[in-house]
Amino acid sequence: MSLRTLAVVGTGLIGTSVALAARRQGVTVYLSDRDESAARTAEDLGAGRAAPPPEPVDLAVVAVPPSLVAPVLAESQARRLALSYTDVASVKSRTEREILATAPDPTRYVGSHPMAGREWSGPRAARAELFRERTWVLTPTRLTSKRAFDRTLDLIALCGAVPRVMGARAHDEAVALTSHAPHLVASLMAARLRDGSAEAAHLAGQGLRDVTRIARGDSRLWSDILESNAAAVAEILTRLQEDLTGVLAALHDLASPGPAVPGGTGPGGGGVVPVPGRHALVDLLDRGIAGVGGLDGAGGGRRGAPGRPEAPAFPVAGGR
Amino acid sequence: MSLRTLAVVGTGLIGTSVALAARRQGVTVYLSDRDESAARTAEDLGAGRAAPPPEPVDLAVVAVPPSLVAPVLAESQARRLALSYTDVASVKSRTEREILATAPDPTRYVGSHPMAGREWSGPRAARAELFRERTWVLTPTRLTSKRAFDRTLDLIALCGAVPRVMGARAHDEAVALTSHAPHLVASLMAARLRDGSAEAAHLAGQGLRDVTRIARGDSRLWSDILESNAAAVAEILTRLQEDLTGVLAALHDLASPGPAVPGGTGPGGGGVVPVPGRHALVDLLDRGIAGVGGLDGAGGGRRGAPGRPEAPAFPVAGGR
Repeated sequence: MSLRTLAVVGTGLIGTSVALAARRQGVTVYLSDRDESAARTAEDLGAGRAAPPPEPVDLAVVAVPPSLVAPVLAESQARRLALSYTDVASVKSRTEREILATAPDPTRYVGSHPMAGREWSGPRAARAELFRERTWVLTPTRLTSKRAFDRTLDLIALCGAVPRVMGARAHDEAVALTSHAPHLVASLMAARLRDGSAEAAHLAGQGLRDVTRIARGDSRLWSDILESNAAAVAEILTRLQEDLTGVLAALHDLASPGPAVPGGTGPGGGGVVPVPGRHALVDLLDRGIAGVGGLDGAGGGRRGAPGRPEAPAFPVAGGR
Repeated sequence: MSLRTLAVVGTGLIGTSVALAARRQGVTVYLSDRDESAARTAEDLGAGRAAPPPEPVDLAVVAVPPSLVAPVLAESQARRLALSYTDVASVKSRTEREILATAPDPTRYVGSHPMAGREWSGPRAARAELFRERTWVLTPTRLTSKRAFDRTLDLIALCGAVPRVMGARAHDEAVALTSHAPHLVASLMAARLRDGSAEAAHLAGQGLRDVTRIARGDSRLWSDILESNAAAVAEILTRLQEDLTGVLAALHDLASPGPAVPGGTGPGGGGVVPVPGRHALVDLLDRGIAGVGGLDGAGGGRRGAPGRPEAPAFPVAGGR
């Protein structure tokens, strides 16, 4: 592995985790952050030195929110921080356009995105093993040099992650579906809990906790991510809203007083007689079952993690 | 404990789990199901005898979908199945009204609802320990006898659960928020996954899995539950839809082409300049963080389960 020196610009959760993983493999790491105390915290955690490198490093990782990647890259290249550059932001297309238009040398850059995170942020939440066996997407531009690509592959390897090359636009549409829209859905549900009674909180179980867990993420970072991928996220949520409108019509239909139509008088489950509204509910629930079934065996998650069954196969969601 | 004989009517996940827990404590259990093969499966699993009791049992548990509880209770009382009766359905108000109007002897009945389940259904998914340390709600009616109440408390104790008395309406509003609306939200997101590419499935991670996990639940049972609590669920989803409409307007606002307004050029996180739409996103995300924060320490979930931190306190969701 030819990566000897690394600069990490932005010592939040992801940047500090990258730095910790690189340090474990003997790489010399230089840390910086607009918030100097965050860089010093990362240094205290053993993530490297909170100082500028004496000469350009092999690779700089720009680990800042999506909207800041292009300006931070331009500024870093202007002061010759590194020979090659990557970033780790969750959205790629807009940044790619900005970098092709504004970077001093876009050939030295390749976009990347490790599919890992925690609901907590900041350097203290960082873990050297955060990326182990996770997918790490590379989004080379039409100008990306082989050296920038190979150095980033080196970084991915020493973090223990699995590289996967995608176009920036395909990446952004994929994460809109698998990460950004789910985050907003979790937030929409979690926001409703503020209306709950003390009684209701007593009945909260694991299902509710799972549905809302990712809503804990940092709201400034997430609004930046969502803004950077707004069109793709809006497209998914527009279709979700169409389904929700149908579900609400069905529920209002079923809630309005009418004759009770029990499915039968014998003991045992099932046996539901068709009435208006019920079909729409069952249809949505069945489509949900089909959709979540498409996740069985899908990649990206930590493989073989404790308590999670090893996924046996990879059926494609939606069957195409 | 004075519960010596038990009848379980409906040997699905919950009924069979109750039967298995009772058998472990030496209770004689009689099983029945409209689907005789389900009752025989439960018998084969050691849950009791798939036969009618020779004389009325101490307690019968009606473990059928919400819409069938009242007719099954009436039929069971007509053949003198038990001295006391409870049910375990997820919705209580409508059933209570039906039972007060139609049951041969409503004094012998108390509603109940164990806050436990799995995303799998049927007797083979049953576990004797399903209810251990879980909340089990009792919803006595104005006619419920002390004997029916006490026999059901005995059952809850031998299942290792924690009893909690609530009114039927308060219960239904609480589970609409903590269980039924979250189920539909998970289904709405999961249904969108059918539109996903193979590429997208590769990027699916634990966050998406958690948000959509409960969408796997049996669609016929869940449509029955949702229908039985339709008004309360519709109220929550109507407010959620209002938020969603605001989020979509913000995303469309942010997606429309305009001058890039990066938050700054220095390295490091944060630093977002206010633009239209961004405020609405941050507001929703912050309300989500507040809502999910209200779950810290809330009851209902399995306490001290492996990998879950022990909850330290019980702040009320919404602060009232």
